[in-house]
Amino acid sequence: MNRNLIIRTLGLVLICEAGAMLPSFFLALYYREPDLLPFLYSILLLAAPGFLLALVRVKNKDVGYREGFAIATMTWLVTAACGSIPFLLSGSLTTFCDAFFESMSGFTTTGASVIPDVEILPHGILFWRSFTHFLGGMGTIVLILALIPSLKVAATQLYKAEVPGPTKSKVLPRILQTTRQLWKVYMLLTAAEVILLLLAGMPLFESFIHTFGSVGTGGFSCKNASIGAYNSLAIECIVMFFMIICGMNFALHIGIMRGNFKAYLNDPETRLYLGIIAISVSLIALNQVYALNNTVEEAIRSSFFTVSSIITTTGYATADFDRWPEFSKIILLLLMFVGGCAGSTAGAIKNVRFLILFKSAARQILKFLHPHAVVPVRLGREVVPDEVVENVQTFFFLYMLIFGASTLYISSLGLDLVSAASSVAATLGNIGPGLALVGPMTNFASLPDSGKLLLSFCMLIGRLEIYTVLVVFSARFWR
Amino acid sequence: MNRNLIIRTLGLVLICEAGAMLPSFFLALYYREPDLLPFLYSILLLAAPGFLLALVRVKNKDVGYREGFAIATMTWLVTAACGSIPFLLSGSLTTFCDAFFESMSGFTTTGASVIPDVEILPHGILFWRSFTHFLGGMGTIVLILALIPSLKVAATQLYKAEVPGPTKSKVLPRILQTTRQLWKVYMLLTAAEVILLLLAGMPLFESFIHTFGSVGTGGFSCKNASIGAYNSLAIECIVMFFMIICGMNFALHIGIMRGNFKAYLNDPETRLYLGIIAISVSLIALNQVYALNNTVEEAIRSSFFTVSSIITTTGYATADFDRWPEFSKIILLLLMFVGGCAGSTAGAIKNVRFLILFKSAARQILKFLHPHAVVPVRLGREVVPDEVVENVQTFFFLYMLIFGASTLYISSLGLDLVSAASSVAATLGNIGPGLALVGPMTNFASLPDSGKLLLSFCMLIGRLEIYTVLVVFSARFWR
Repeated sequence: MNRNLIIRTLGLVLICEAGAMLPSFFLALYYREPDLLPFLYSILLLAAPGFLLALVRVKNKDVGYREGFAIATMTWLVTAACGSIPFLLSGSLTTFCDAFFESMSGFTTTGASVIPDVEILPHGILFWRSFTHFLGGMGTIVLILALIPSLKVAATQLYKAEVPGPTKSKVLPRILQTTRQLWKVYMLLTAAEVILLLLAGMPLFESFIHTFGSVGTGGFSCKNASIGAYNSLAIECIVMFFMIICGMNFALHIGIMRGNFKAYLNDPETRLYLGIIAISVSLIALNQVYALNNTVEEAIRSSFFTVSSIITTTGYATADFDRWPEFSKIILLLLMFVGGCAGSTAGAIKNVRFLILFKSAARQILKFLHPHAVVPVRLGREVVPDEVVENVQTFFFLYMLIFGASTLYISSLGLDLVSAASSVAATLGNIGPGLALVGPMTNFASLPDSGKLLLSFCMLIGRLEIYTVLVVFSARFWR
Repeated sequence: MNRNLIIRTLGLVLICEAGAMLPSFFLALYYREPDLLPFLYSILLLAAPGFLLALVRVKNKDVGYREGFAIATMTWLVTAACGSIPFLLSGSLTTFCDAFFESMSGFTTTGASVIPDVEILPHGILFWRSFTHFLGGMGTIVLILALIPSLKVAATQLYKAEVPGPTKSKVLPRILQTTRQLWKVYMLLTAAEVILLLLAGMPLFESFIHTFGSVGTGGFSCKNASIGAYNSLAIECIVMFFMIICGMNFALHIGIMRGNFKAYLNDPETRLYLGIIAISVSLIALNQVYALNNTVEEAIRSSFFTVSSIITTTGYATADFDRWPEFSKIILLLLMFVGGCAGSTAGAIKNVRFLILFKSAARQILKFLHPHAVVPVRLGREVVPDEVVENVQTFFFLYMLIFGASTLYISSLGLDLVSAASSVAATLGNIGPGLALVGPMTNFASLPDSGKLLLSFCMLIGRLEIYTVLVVFSARFWR
């Protein structure tokens, strides 16, 4: 293992994180709020060891699988731990568990909160809290690319789009180039949403907060009632549009920028994703019209926003969906497992994995009728290699296993089944709000510390697509 | 497709089913109860078309995959449909949906009931109801063998035990021979349990009822309070012992009969199964001691019986586990997915599949560290072929998919999440009782008809290990 490289990288990460706190520092200065010194101290606390670690000499610059996995896992862990410092120093949160949960929730773009009243927080803290979503979204995009060969699924498309002949020597510069393009898309989407929200009448500061929350598919808000606080159709539509866009594969957006307008329609994953949204919205709207006697307009408006928010794993709310009929709630719970598309900032299992699972199931059934037939699993025109199919099937099993085991643990803390299961589904899938005790109009503050730590770990494992974390925590890794 | 063969087989099945109603007929005669004529009519209604169909000439005696799958699916469907006739004619149940549900629940050894008060039923009907468990258990054993090459997992062990060199010509006689041995074990277990229950003070008729319920891992009782009605430690221990034994691979029992006493200990699946029972009993007992202030003895007694009943997918109850703390309930809910061992009369996903899933997950993680390593998945000393691994992984996905989709449908009928999810888990896994509205001290009577039909289908699909049914219902099958 190339330890020096990992240490140096962490040093650079700390420096970047200290730099990322500067906007909050200036906001505190501008608003003359009491979080000024906490941010100053936090920046110094991070930058000092950061510069020291960054001085470590790296003779060997080889980055293998091990280093990649270790860097990804350590970066998220260390960033989340250090990101909690401003919360603690400013007194916004008083225990490390709470602050770590909030920070991890931000960086993993989950959006689950332990702060009962966000409206009393100073601007600097609010900005930092939401800025972690923005940074986490950027990190996720790097992750998609950095782990290309290992996570396979998410990346094949990106990889193929960008690397015509994958000769080893050319991979690194291409990856850097692709990263730059992806970030360009990300920045463009961010700028566009801020401007549109401003035009729709949202104040500048709040526009930034909600833009970070939607492009990172995070979900932190500066309002206790989330997007529902504005009661504005225009704002809801804008947020909804950007959530849906950011739940799509960013490689397709690059395609659009190059004039390839058919990219969305030709992509089987996007079709499944949009199809699931359409069906879920229809079913929930029907359910609301019949069970709650809502008008058709109200029903479509609230179900469209909520479905978009949950499937993209954002977690913004305009309605207390925990009070919806069970049928609607179960659809939302199922969507928490589906999630967005691979190559997006969204979390959960992702549509492309379900596509592969469906197709391999169909193949399995066909094999019973034609035992000797060789049937490849295809996505569009591409053949999915069998090792990718196995990777996806194992992913699904591990996801359900972690879900079951964590639900059992959370229930041992005294939570009921629905609260326990939905709190795990909402954190493992990086969504945010769950149902019952952890519903959209409440928060995770009431959980015991060990529950908050476990759920923080679920956020991490969900964000890093399970394998990354499991590999690093496997005994063999350290031999 | 060899239609004549299928038709003739169904004829023979009807004749057998008519014959299987004879004991109930004689019981009705003996007790001079009003179900005498209903059984007489039922026997005639089944035997007449049975003999006609059995006369169909079969020129081609080839049984391929297609015929095997069609026969298995049709047999269970037709048997369950015809098995509902005595319930209807005797007036014990008044609608076809109810009677079909009860009959399917019997033949699939599920044990979910729509009869609120079983104690008022005549002896003949009670016997028939439980005898379907016994027949379903026998059928399951045949199924394990008949579908050997296709269902693979369950069977490899049996297959290897009995077929040293699998030359095609010798397979059929060997299968018949193995079937005979398995049935011998089944009959011995049945006889042993009846005698032991008699010795423990249970009346003869009730001993038969509860023996059928435990060796078939079904769960129908002639008491509304199930096994709890006896409040006898001896009876609980006997029933528990036979449930656990019948949740094990019957091939191992054959081994024991031949003096191979190490068979249980050497079998990785049995070790996992017994290990899960031990851990679950301990956790639930601890939970009861702390949360409910039960004595240690009470806690172990009720948790041991309940865990054995649920993991073996029997469904007998001595306690209303729906009132237990959430932690205990979630353990039971998870056990509903685990189920017994392959090659037993138990249902659900089964331990060997989880073993394979765990091992292939470990392999997947190892592959990230050593991308070029070729690592076979092993069960004991045997290498599990990759196609079996894929078969199992797909099985898991389909199981969860059917679970999710059915839960959604049941919730649309107005059931809450816990009732909906547990009613599907309990029928798909052939267990019987679920939680909340379908808990152990209540029943499925309150569900709307379409819910009963869907759950009956879940029982069928669970019993026939998903693939069998999906293959028959696939469009390609009928081309």
